[in-house]
Amino acid sequence: MTEIAKLGEFGLIKHLTKELPQGQSTTLKGVGDDCAVLKSVDGKNLLLTSDMLMEGIHFDLQYTPLQHLGYKAAMANLSDVYAMNGKPTQLLVNLAISGRFAVEDVEALYSGIRLACKKHDVDIVGGDISTSLTGLAISITCVGEATEGEVVYRSGAKSTDLLCVSGNLGAAYMGLQLMEREKHIFNSRPSTEAEAAQPDFSGREYLLERLLKPEARRDVVESLRAAGIRPTAMIDVSDGLSSEVMHICEASGVGARIYEERLPLDYQTAVAAEEFNMNVSTCALNGGDDYELLFTVPLTAHEAVSQIPDVRIIGHITPAEQGRMLVSRDGQEFELKAQGWNNQ
Amino acid sequence: MTEIAKLGEFGLIKHLTKELPQGQSTTLKGVGDDCAVLKSVDGKNLLLTSDMLMEGIHFDLQYTPLQHLGYKAAMANLSDVYAMNGKPTQLLVNLAISGRFAVEDVEALYSGIRLACKKHDVDIVGGDISTSLTGLAISITCVGEATEGEVVYRSGAKSTDLLCVSGNLGAAYMGLQLMEREKHIFNSRPSTEAEAAQPDFSGREYLLERLLKPEARRDVVESLRAAGIRPTAMIDVSDGLSSEVMHICEASGVGARIYEERLPLDYQTAVAAEEFNMNVSTCALNGGDDYELLFTVPLTAHEAVSQIPDVRIIGHITPAEQGRMLVSRDGQEFELKAQGWNNQ
Repeated sequence: MTEIAKLGEFGLIKHLTKELPQGQSTTLKGVGDDCAVLKSVDGKNLLLTSDMLMEGIHFDLQYTPLQHLGYKAAMANLSDVYAMNGKPTQLLVNLAISGRFAVEDVEALYSGIRLACKKHDVDIVGGDISTSLTGLAISITCVGEATEGEVVYRSGAKSTDLLCVSGNLGAAYMGLQLMEREKHIFNSRPSTEAEAAQPDFSGREYLLERLLKPEARRDVVESLRAAGIRPTAMIDVSDGLSSEVMHICEASGVGARIYEERLPLDYQTAVAAEEFNMNVSTCALNGGDDYELLFTVPLTAHEAVSQIPDVRIIGHITPAEQGRMLVSRDGQEFELKAQGWNNQ
Repeated sequence: MTEIAKLGEFGLIKHLTKELPQGQSTTLKGVGDDCAVLKSVDGKNLLLTSDMLMEGIHFDLQYTPLQHLGYKAAMANLSDVYAMNGKPTQLLVNLAISGRFAVEDVEALYSGIRLACKKHDVDIVGGDISTSLTGLAISITCVGEATEGEVVYRSGAKSTDLLCVSGNLGAAYMGLQLMEREKHIFNSRPSTEAEAAQPDFSGREYLLERLLKPEARRDVVESLRAAGIRPTAMIDVSDGLSSEVMHICEASGVGARIYEERLPLDYQTAVAAEEFNMNVSTCALNGGDDYELLFTVPLTAHEAVSQIPDVRIIGHITPAEQGRMLVSRDGQEFELKAQGWNNQ
């Protein structure tokens, strides 16, 4: 028998999905991108993505309010549709809930999903609720649409393209460290003290918000469109920047060079990293749950992309043989490494 | 706080999904049928269904081979598409697996899903694999298509329509009883004996097959189409016949009368029910996992539907005020009751 750890998450998916039969004429793109792409109505393509969140792996109910959890679960799927340059339209929600949940808990979870959908004009059209013997499980499928020919895959990056990312990175990861620390303190106190203890997160609100209430970047997709820029490749940053850069490189058959000094960081992220004695660049490169967009544009779009608010050029695409490199502040080059199974 | 048991499974779904906003022009039907229905390409409708299976609730790995589990998980979703008078086309598969699984286990599970898809010409186009701290979770989303105007909803049944069901009922439920009994015997033996013990299922193969390897009834949908019969309402029998009859009645605003003597039963189902000292009609009415099709046709189709192989007329639709009744062999009338949370 072969241990799964030997292949890793991405290796296992690749192993299982190789040579999948594709006989349907409506299937334009199957496994291997943020969404599957199907032919649809009136010159449109249909986008499909599905994700499952498991208690204890993807979230910890001790510090995750159920409404936030629902919101985040929905946002993670909407983000996958935006990463294809599409617009999410419908959602299906499967929940498996254990006996310790009350109707009000499920309402709270569902209200978060509804809120995310309302913000993005998405209809909830189906799904399933069942019992779970153990923890909470949430599986969400999102349908989206894009005009034919406007879908952006991971595979379109070309050498000399600029590599850009929206927002900033590593904040959700630092939020997670804060929550884990407070949880540890809380759990190791005697119960009477614990009840009275209120963690002080003042000055850290932004990190917690990034962890608990991420926003899918529709605004960035719209800004790019308004500026007449069509990315050559795009992916959302859910597993960490390194991992996503490598996905684009692999799908596009290219290399990449990103610059440490260009990594977008929030001030609070840097302060918290210092406090936890962590390298903030490592947090930005490998921390998950950012839900920012990573994309490539042709060199000719340099001027235009520099004008887009909240987007930063962090490097460029190279020929494959030049590898996937991080250039540190002092000019040294390091090969990018991706984490598998990390919080996903 | 309100206990979930107070609302029940269907009550909870109804409660959570009431007044869901539907703003997308492509959404034709949201929650409340076997599939959601969206507008699609070339006068087609798109069908969408999603289901989650949890270890210990929906399946027991002690007696469910992983390949069969994958096959069944896929079939359950295909069945939902056929129940809309559609044709399944694409599948997305989310798996959450615990550390005790090896690569070969996941391969076995996936090979069952692939086999089901191959049989029904369905492409696997996406999904996700993650870890689970506890049991195995499988969430499958199926996409299908139907010609616009040919979709059959639960809501189209009219008074005097004939109520028909394919195949036979209660066999999977009796298969489950056999497996549960053997498991109990196996687990209560000393370990040395247990290893030598081989349960004898000879003569019961059909019941186990119905439990472990159900077949979605594409053949019935095709036979009906070939005969020029379009059902007025249709649903697949996954939670038990009673429950499904009640779904059609509720969605259509009608009543129904079904006849105990007309319930289709396999000989082995009857023998096993006798052995377990169970009422075989109760097994047929409330046993789950049959994956047969329950549908209504106009009275004028009586002759034509009687010619369809493996389909039986079990009753008829009545005005709502006449209730949802079972007429027993001795002519007494009983109100139908549905089970909630039963193996679903």
